Amino acid sequence: MRIAILGATGAVGQTILRVLEERGVEADEIVPLASERSRGSRIDWRGRSWEVRAPEPGVFRGCTLALFSAGASRSREWAPRAAAEGAVVIDNSSAWRMDPAVPLVVPEINAHRIPDRPRGIIANPNCVTIQLALALEAIRRAAGLRRVVASTYQSVSGAGQRGVAALEAELAGRPADQSPFASPIAGNVIPAIGDRDGEGWSEEEEKIRQESRKILGLPSLPVAATCVRVPVVVGHAVAATVETERPLSRAEACAALAAMPGLVLADDLHDPLPRDAVGADTVRVGRVRVDRDLPSVLHLWVVGDNLRKGAATNAVQIAEHVIRG
Amino acid sequence: MRIAILGATGAVGQTILRVLEERGVEADEIVPLASERSRGSRIDWRGRSWEVRAPEPGVFRGCTLALFSAGASRSREWAPRAAAEGAVVIDNSSAWRMDPAVPLVVPEINAHRIPDRPRGIIANPNCVTIQLALALEAIRRAAGLRRVVASTYQSVSGAGQRGVAALEAELAGRPADQSPFASPIAGNVIPAIGDRDGEGWSEEEEKIRQESRKILGLPSLPVAATCVRVPVVVGHAVAATVETERPLSRAEACAALAAMPGLVLADDLHDPLPRDAVGADTVRVGRVRVDRDLPSVLHLWVVGDNLRKGAATNAVQIAEHVIRG
Repeated sequence: MRIAILGATGAVGQTILRVLEERGVEADEIVPLASERSRGSRIDWRGRSWEVRAPEPGVFRGCTLALFSAGASRSREWAPRAAAEGAVVIDNSSAWRMDPAVPLVVPEINAHRIPDRPRGIIANPNCVTIQLALALEAIRRAAGLRRVVASTYQSVSGAGQRGVAALEAELAGRPADQSPFASPIAGNVIPAIGDRDGEGWSEEEEKIRQESRKILGLPSLPVAATCVRVPVVVGHAVAATVETERPLSRAEACAALAAMPGLVLADDLHDPLPRDAVGADTVRVGRVRVDRDLPSVLHLWVVGDNLRKGAATNAVQIAEHVIRG
Repeated sequence: MRIAILGATGAVGQTILRVLEERGVEADEIVPLASERSRGSRIDWRGRSWEVRAPEPGVFRGCTLALFSAGASRSREWAPRAAAEGAVVIDNSSAWRMDPAVPLVVPEINAHRIPDRPRGIIANPNCVTIQLALALEAIRRAAGLRRVVASTYQSVSGAGQRGVAALEAELAGRPADQSPFASPIAGNVIPAIGDRDGEGWSEEEEKIRQESRKILGLPSLPVAATCVRVPVVVGHAVAATVETERPLSRAEACAALAAMPGLVLADDLHDPLPRDAVGADTVRVGRVRVDRDLPSVLHLWVVGDNLRKGAATNAVQIAEHVIRG
């Protein structure tokens, strides 16, 4: 089995390689692909080493899987070619997520969509959407969903290695060159992730709304998010308010969350922190509260490793389903 | 006119002295009071200097005003004595806020409550509640209020000088002694401000709920908050979701916010950041969005200087009303 990794030198690509190894995915060959800048560097994996190449026609031939994490424009260009060359593409960009012919998958929620991939492409959702969707699915199974409001606390690694470099430079007292953020992020919080539409909503906020609906199969669920960048290196957090069809007690809500695969319920003495999620393949949920005034409303705090379950781990889980057939 | 300042050496006490000077409040004498630890240090104000004393019976005699910012237990002990000695107490702690015989005042909203102070005590609200309440009042005037959900991004100075020292130590690579936070705050976000009740709600979350209702005079308004500490030195931010009695267009909501005294509306190109609010006596609001699915729901981002409008400036504004009679 041959697995191509497009974006192999990026933050998510590197994590994909690590997660493939940790989870014991068997591959005879890794085909690491990246932009011209990285050409000639090498990728070590399970004691072997492969040279990084730029993608070119024919490179996906013989690959069972192609895991993409190199941005939407490269995905739009290369995913159909990789699929035509016979690879199943698992794409971590936003390029294909809302295409009706592309399943958008969080395996614990909708693994049954994986075989239905007429384009040969499966989309990996937005990082913070994955962790939020896991908590929403847990609550949905217990009491149905009527409405979701989310405020995010998103780490700089969500903006890639340049985001991490910017925070590190600023903390060291140097100006950040090529910061992906509009303002210094150290000592700051920035309520802007992605471009803004004419009504004031950011791309990230709209991704959470549209992708949550698609993953949950609830196309008209009201979902509204406010997305905020915080000076944390890795680990996204979300404060979520969830209106259910039936009221749940706090104990019932906790039981529903604890029963959800992929989710770990924290007790009241251990509020989940971004650092608690780092390196974990599961998402942590805590601060479970029933609204004081509205009995069918729950408030939750959800934390995940945006590079792992929010990106690489979710993609590798999808890959495992594809391999198993 | 003599003005006593209890907690004169603390972060808020120092800011009160600065704001009194900036706003040209006339005082013949400042009586700086603090705990035994600070006894003997001196306070400079308008070119004069006074020795810091520990509070003792009789010290408030002859004071027109006593501005308290030394925690709830000192306020419970000293506010009734200061009032009995003839001073009007403006208390920045949580001790008296929910007492039905104590007005809880944000002057732009309910200055008319100031003269109604049977105990001789006026309470200054919680820092983040003040900034949120200003935005809520603006929306209420235009369209009524049905429900509020808030997620906060609160700076370390909200935990006093020890909070600032903890963040600074951690950023310098030293462990923080006497950190008021349960975990390191640098590179982190902590969803815990104040003790937790049996239902999982924190003190700060409950303050926002109860105090907002009292300030707005809407005792049964559903208000639910999730309060989170972030590694910012000064400046609190709030992501607020506001359900109104009547739908507002985005332009109408912006007009309502821009018309509110004490509030400054940011345009789409200048999202308010904590640092933009630092040093300002006004609160900034931006990211105004009408919910995509629910036309009577607005989403806002509200930023304020927690030491100034969230504490000292609001207290001094109340003092100005008391002085004017």
